[in-house]
Amino acid sequence: MNTLEGHLPVRSPLHDILAPSGIAVVGASADPTKRGYKAMVGLINGGYQGHIYPINPKADHILGVQAWPSLTEMPGRPELALLCTPAASVPALIAECGRRGVKGAVILASGFGETGEEGAALEAQMMEIARAHGVRIIGPNTSGMFNLHHQINLLALDNVKPGDIGIVSQSGNMLLSLALEAQHNGQVGFSTYVGPGNQSDIGFNDYLRYLGEDEHTRVATLYVEGFRDGQQFLKVARDVTAMKPVVVYKSGATEQGQKAASSHTGALAGSYQMTVDLLRQAGVSVVQYSDEILPVAEGLGRLQKAPGKRVAVISDGGGQATIAADRLSEAGLTLAELSDATRSALREVLLPQASTLNPVDVAGSSDANPSLLASCIELVMADEGVDSVFLVGMLGGYSLRFAESLMGDEMRGAERMVELAQASEKPLVIYSLYAPIKPPALRRLHEAGLPVYSSIEHAVRVLAALGERGEYLASQQVQETIAPAAPAETGKAMLKAAKAEGRDLLEFEAKGLLAEHGIAVPEEWLVRREDELAEIAQCTQGKPLAMKVVSKDILHKSDAGGVKLNLVGEAPLRDAFQAIQSNAQAYDPNAQIEGVLVTPMAEKGVEVIIGMLRDPIFGPVLMFGLGGIFVEVLEDVAFRSLPLTLHDAQSMVDQLKAQKVLAGVRGAAGVDKQALVSLLMQVSQLVEAYPEISELDLNPVIAYPKGHSAANYAIVDARIIVERQS
Amino acid sequence: MNTLEGHLPVRSPLHDILAPSGIAVVGASADPTKRGYKAMVGLINGGYQGHIYPINPKADHILGVQAWPSLTEMPGRPELALLCTPAASVPALIAECGRRGVKGAVILASGFGETGEEGAALEAQMMEIARAHGVRIIGPNTSGMFNLHHQINLLALDNVKPGDIGIVSQSGNMLLSLALEAQHNGQVGFSTYVGPGNQSDIGFNDYLRYLGEDEHTRVATLYVEGFRDGQQFLKVARDVTAMKPVVVYKSGATEQGQKAASSHTGALAGSYQMTVDLLRQAGVSVVQYSDEILPVAEGLGRLQKAPGKRVAVISDGGGQATIAADRLSEAGLTLAELSDATRSALREVLLPQASTLNPVDVAGSSDANPSLLASCIELVMADEGVDSVFLVGMLGGYSLRFAESLMGDEMRGAERMVELAQASEKPLVIYSLYAPIKPPALRRLHEAGLPVYSSIEHAVRVLAALGERGEYLASQQVQETIAPAAPAETGKAMLKAAKAEGRDLLEFEAKGLLAEHGIAVPEEWLVRREDELAEIAQCTQGKPLAMKVVSKDILHKSDAGGVKLNLVGEAPLRDAFQAIQSNAQAYDPNAQIEGVLVTPMAEKGVEVIIGMLRDPIFGPVLMFGLGGIFVEVLEDVAFRSLPLTLHDAQSMVDQLKAQKVLAGVRGAAGVDKQALVSLLMQVSQLVEAYPEISELDLNPVIAYPKGHSAANYAIVDARIIVERQS
Repeated sequence: MNTLEGHLPVRSPLHDILAPSGIAVVGASADPTKRGYKAMVGLINGGYQGHIYPINPKADHILGVQAWPSLTEMPGRPELALLCTPAASVPALIAECGRRGVKGAVILASGFGETGEEGAALEAQMMEIARAHGVRIIGPNTSGMFNLHHQINLLALDNVKPGDIGIVSQSGNMLLSLALEAQHNGQVGFSTYVGPGNQSDIGFNDYLRYLGEDEHTRVATLYVEGFRDGQQFLKVARDVTAMKPVVVYKSGATEQGQKAASSHTGALAGSYQMTVDLLRQAGVSVVQYSDEILPVAEGLGRLQKAPGKRVAVISDGGGQATIAADRLSEAGLTLAELSDATRSALREVLLPQASTLNPVDVAGSSDANPSLLASCIELVMADEGVDSVFLVGMLGGYSLRFAESLMGDEMRGAERMVELAQASEKPLVIYSLYAPIKPPALRRLHEAGLPVYSSIEHAVRVLAALGERGEYLASQQVQETIAPAAPAETGKAMLKAAKAEGRDLLEFEAKGLLAEHGIAVPEEWLVRREDELAEIAQCTQGKPLAMKVVSKDILHKSDAGGVKLNLVGEAPLRDAFQAIQSNAQAYDPNAQIEGVLVTPMAEKGVEVIIGMLRDPIFGPVLMFGLGGIFVEVLEDVAFRSLPLTLHDAQSMVDQLKAQKVLAGVRGAAGVDKQALVSLLMQVSQLVEAYPEISELDLNPVIAYPKGHSAANYAIVDARIIVERQS
Repeated sequence: MNTLEGHLPVRSPLHDILAPSGIAVVGASADPTKRGYKAMVGLINGGYQGHIYPINPKADHILGVQAWPSLTEMPGRPELALLCTPAASVPALIAECGRRGVKGAVILASGFGETGEEGAALEAQMMEIARAHGVRIIGPNTSGMFNLHHQINLLALDNVKPGDIGIVSQSGNMLLSLALEAQHNGQVGFSTYVGPGNQSDIGFNDYLRYLGEDEHTRVATLYVEGFRDGQQFLKVARDVTAMKPVVVYKSGATEQGQKAASSHTGALAGSYQMTVDLLRQAGVSVVQYSDEILPVAEGLGRLQKAPGKRVAVISDGGGQATIAADRLSEAGLTLAELSDATRSALREVLLPQASTLNPVDVAGSSDANPSLLASCIELVMADEGVDSVFLVGMLGGYSLRFAESLMGDEMRGAERMVELAQASEKPLVIYSLYAPIKPPALRRLHEAGLPVYSSIEHAVRVLAALGERGEYLASQQVQETIAPAAPAETGKAMLKAAKAEGRDLLEFEAKGLLAEHGIAVPEEWLVRREDELAEIAQCTQGKPLAMKVVSKDILHKSDAGGVKLNLVGEAPLRDAFQAIQSNAQAYDPNAQIEGVLVTPMAEKGVEVIIGMLRDPIFGPVLMFGLGGIFVEVLEDVAFRSLPLTLHDAQSMVDQLKAQKVLAGVRGAAGVDKQALVSLLMQVSQLVEAYPEISELDLNPVIAYPKGHSAANYAIVDARIIVERQS
C-alpha cells in the first residue's frame, strides 16, 4: 500500500488558526436556533480540549461555560475567534480581535462583497482593519470550519468522525452532503474542513498549503466555484500534489452552470476546460461529477496511486466484467495484457470454463471457495504488465447467496486480500454488488483501508485517478526544466516602440521576433513599392505566392480585401498590389498602409493553432489546438500554464481528441509531433522573456510530416498583441 | 402524476408460463448448496399458491413437499418446469415435458451454444424436440425467473418485494445487484424477472411484449448483451413504449467491452452507437451507466414522463444549484425561463437575497419554515414554461440540522409536495443530501411514490429520461406515415441484370435509379468515345467538369487513377479521357471499361453522407453524417431503422453533434436542412421498394443553403450494392 512521500518547504501560518488552543465565540447563545449555540455545542460535545470563551453581553454562562461581555473583557489569548454576529458588527470586532492578539477570525455573516457595492465597501473596510491588526480572515460568508483531530467542530455536525480527508468547500451544502455520505459509508472520516467563503483574505491556495502540511490529511478535497489567485494556487497545488493527492470539483462546467455560479459568488470564472487543463497540469485529480467526489477522495486517500494505467479485472460474472471493461476504456485506462505465465497459473486454479483473458472471469470457480478470488488477485498482481487490480462481483455475498458455510472461507479470502494489498504497490479496488448491505467480509476489507464500492462507475473513476496520479508523479521525476529565453535588444526595442504608439506588432515584426528566438518563419518580403515585385517574381521562379496588407490599422486583413493568394508571375503580383492598396483605402480611408507582405503559399498540411493569453486568474496560459473547423466547431484544444515543461508540451499535443488527424487521415502521413512540441517550448520561452506581450496568436500553423522541410511546420500568420500603457 | 396509457393488441403466450398454476422442479434437492434446493425454498418461503412438484428419483418428500421420481410419474399438469439438471439431461426432459403438457421450461444448465460447437449441437437438438412438443424454452444458461406478484421466486432471492419494475437481464449478477440496490433503497420492488440466457427460443422481444402486457409492470428494464432478432425487438419496443417506459442498458459500449461481451455470450453485437440510436428511435430510454439503471427505472416507473425538457430548479443552496444547472445542460435539458408573474409571486414569499431566476435559490428563506419549498414548487409548477420541477438541497434535514421543532413544518411540506405531484402532469424529482440517512420527511415522500435521490447526477438522468419520453410520445402523435415507393420496372430490370451478372450498379445506373424516384442528381454524360467530348465541352460553356471511370471491375476509382477534376475545355477533356483509359488498364488489365462519366464539378458546400445497410440483427438501417474528416475522425453519425418517419429524418439531422457546421461556420450560410430531411425520406422509400439493394452509399452529398439551386444538394457519388445470388 502506498504511503505519503516528501514534505513541503514552508510551514503555513494557518496551523495556529485552524488548530487553536483557545476559541472565542462571539455571539454565543443558548438559543438552539442560533449558530452561536451550534458552535458551542459542537465544541463542548466534540470534546474540545482548549479554552472556550463565549462572548455575549447578556449572559454569565452559556451551556455551562463562563461567558464574557466582550472580547476586550475576556481573559486569556485565544488564537481564533468565531464571529456569529451580523455583517455590520464585523469591522469593529476585527479591530477588537487585533487588539487582543487573536490571530484569525471566522466570519459567518453574509452581506459583504457577494451582495453588491455596499457590501463590497464593508468588506474592504473590514479587510483594511484586519491587515492593520494582523488578523487573518476565514470568510466572510462561510459555513465555518472544523478540525476533528483537534476536537474542533464549529459546525456542530453530528456523526462526522476524524479521518484523513481534508475539505475546502465553497458550498456549505456540499460539505454537509459529503459528511452525510461519509456517515453512510461508515469508514470515511475527515481531518479539517474550511469554507473559504468570499476569500477576502485567506484563499484556496493558503488552505491547500495547510492541508498539504497537515499530518492528518492524506488527501485534500476541494469544491471550487472560483479561484481568486489561480496562478498562486497552481504553484501550491504542484507542491502539494508531489506529496499527497488533491481532488478538485470545479463547478460551472457549462454555460448554464457558469451563470448559476456567478450569480452565487463574485468570483471570476474562466473557461471550465482551461481551468481543468491547468489543474491537471499541476497534478490535481479533477472529478467531473459531484457524486464522484467522496468515492475518489476515499480511494486516493487510502490507495494514493497506481504505477500506471494497466488494470487487471477479476470477476465472478461476465456481465459486470463487460461493464467494467467498457468503463475502463472510456476512462482512458487499458486492460492489462496478462503474461502467458500468469494465464497458465490462473488456469491451474480455475475451472476449464473460466476465461483467463483480461477481464478474468472465474465463471463459477469461486462459488464453493470464494477465497480463490484472493489467489487470482495474487497471481495478477505479480504480473509485470499489471498496474492495478479491479475485483468485480459478489464478494461478501457468497455466504449469503450460496451457503452460510462459506462464511469462513470468504473471511479468509478477505484477510488474504488485505495482506496482498498491504504488501503491494499496486492498488486493489473492489466493486461488490453486496456493498449496499455491507456484509462482514466487505466490512473487514473496508476497515483495513480497502475501499469497497457499490458502483462500477465510481470504482473505475478511482482506478483512473490512481493511474493518472502515478503517471503524473513519474512524469515529474524526469522533468526537464528549460531556462526562459533572454530577451533580445531588438525585440525589446520593437515592443517598446509599439507600446509607445499604442499598437500591436505588425505581422512581419511578429515573425521577426519569432525568428530572433530560433523559430522557423517562412521566407517573406515586405514590399513598399510596386516595382520591388519584379525581383521577387524572378527569384521565386513561378512558385505561387500570397500577398497580405501590412497596416497597424487593419486587424482583419481578409475582410478588408487585403489578402490575395496563389499569385504566379510579375503581372498578377502587380495587379494584386494595386487591388490591395485600393481595397485597403476603401475599407479605411485613414488606415496607414506600411506596404504588403509577400510570401510563398504554404503547402497543404494539418492546420494547428498556438496561442498565448494572460488570464486574469491564472496568468500566462498557452493554448494548442487543431485549426479551422476543429477549433471553431469542436473546441478541441489544450491549455497549459507557463512556464511549460517538456512533458507539458508533449501532453498538450497528445491530449487532443482528434489524434487521428495528427496521425494522418485518408492515407496522409502523420505530422511531425516532435516539431510541434519544440515549437510550443520555444513559444513558451519567448513569451516569458517579454512580459509586454499580452497575447500571441499563431494561426494557422501548418504542420507537416517528418522529412518535409527543415522545420516541418509553417507559421502562416502571427499576431502579437502588446500590453497597452496604463 | 402520470398513469399508464393504451394497451397492446395481442396477448403474449408467456403469461401461462411466467404465472403458472403449477411448477415442476426437476432436480429438486434437500442439499442447501444446490439450485434445486434454492428454488424449492424460494417457492415455499415466497408463499407460492400453486402446486409444486419436486422431481427427484431418490426422495419421497423434499422440504415437506411430496416428490415424484420423474415428470412422467408426477400427477397434475403444471404449466412450467424448472430444470436444475446438467445440460446432457435436457433434451430428454424437454420431450417428457412435452408429453406431460408442460408449456414452458426454465433451463438453468450451461454447456450449450455459449461453449462451442458441441454445445451448439446439443442446443439445436433440444430446440428441435421443444418445437416438436410445443414446449417454450427460457434459457438455457439462465439464472432463472421470478414473478413476485404471483409469489414465484425461483431464485430464492431474499428481501425482494413485489413492485412495478419488470426486469430482463442477461447477467445474473446484474439482477442480483439491482435487487440489492432495491433492498437498500427500501421502496423499490419488482414484478417479473427473467434471465433470457442463450435465447434459444424466447428472446428479448417476447419478454418485452409480456412485460408490456403485464398489469403489474409500470416500467420494463432490460440489461442486454446481444439481441437475436433486433428488428422484431424494435417493433415490440415501439408498441410497448407507447404504453409504458422501457429502460435498456446495452453492454459493450467500447471495443474492449465488446470483446469482453462476445467472449461471454454467442450473441452478435452490432456497433454500440447504432444500437442506441435504433433503440431511442423506438422510444426506449437508454441508460449509459450501470449505476443509473435502478434510479432511472424507479423514476420512470413512478413518474412516467414529463411534458417536455424545461426544468425549474428550486434549491436551498447555491452550490448544488450550480451543479444541477451544469448537469441539466449536459443532459440536453434546459433551465425553464420563469415568467414575470411566477418570479414576482416567488419574490413575495422569499427573502430579498433569494434569486428568482432559475435555478431558484431560496437563500435561507426556508431555514425556519421548510414547507416554503412546497409553496415554491406550487408556483413554478403553475408556470406554463415549466415541464418538470427539480428540488435540490437539504429537505428532510431541516429538523436535524437546524432545530427539532421544524419537524412538523417539514412533514407538512412533504405532504403538500405529495399532493402537488399527484395533481400535476409535471413530475417532481427530488435530490436531497439527507437521502443517505432517510429522515422521516423523505421516507414519507418516497412511500407516496416520489423517488428521492442521493445523487444530483442520477436525479438529472431521471429528469432527462422523463423529458425525452414526453417528447417521444408527442412526436408519435403527429407521426406522418409515408407509403413506400412503388418499384419502377426499369429499376427492377437494372437490379435483376446486375444481380444476374454478380455485380453492383454502375455509378450512372445508381444515379439513374435515384432520379427515377424523384431524387435530384447532377447533370451528367456517360461518354464511351473520345469524340463525344467536343459537344460536352461546347454545351457546358467553360464550367469546370469532373470525369470518372465507369467499370464494374473498378471499385476504388481514385486509386486506379480513374478520376480527373476541374477540366475546362475540349483539349483537357480529351487528355483526361486518354489518361483515365490508360490508368485503368494499367490498374487492372482485365477490367471491363464502360466509358467515363462526365459531370460539372459540384460547388463548395457542406459534405454529408447518406448510407443504408442491412444489419444482420436490426435489418435495414439508414445512416446520416457529416462527410470527410467528420465521419472518419469523429464518427459523428446518426442511425435509424427503416421505414423512416418524418420525425426520424428530422431527428437524424438534428442529432449530429457538429450542428455548427450545418448552421454555417466562418460566416457561411447554413445548409437547407429541410432538403436533407426530404432526401433522407426519399432514400428510405427507395430502398424499401427494392429489397435487392443490400447497401447504398451517397458519399459525398454536398449540402447547400436555401435558394442555392432547385434541390439545394448535389449527390457527387452514388454506390448501390446489389444482393448476390445465393
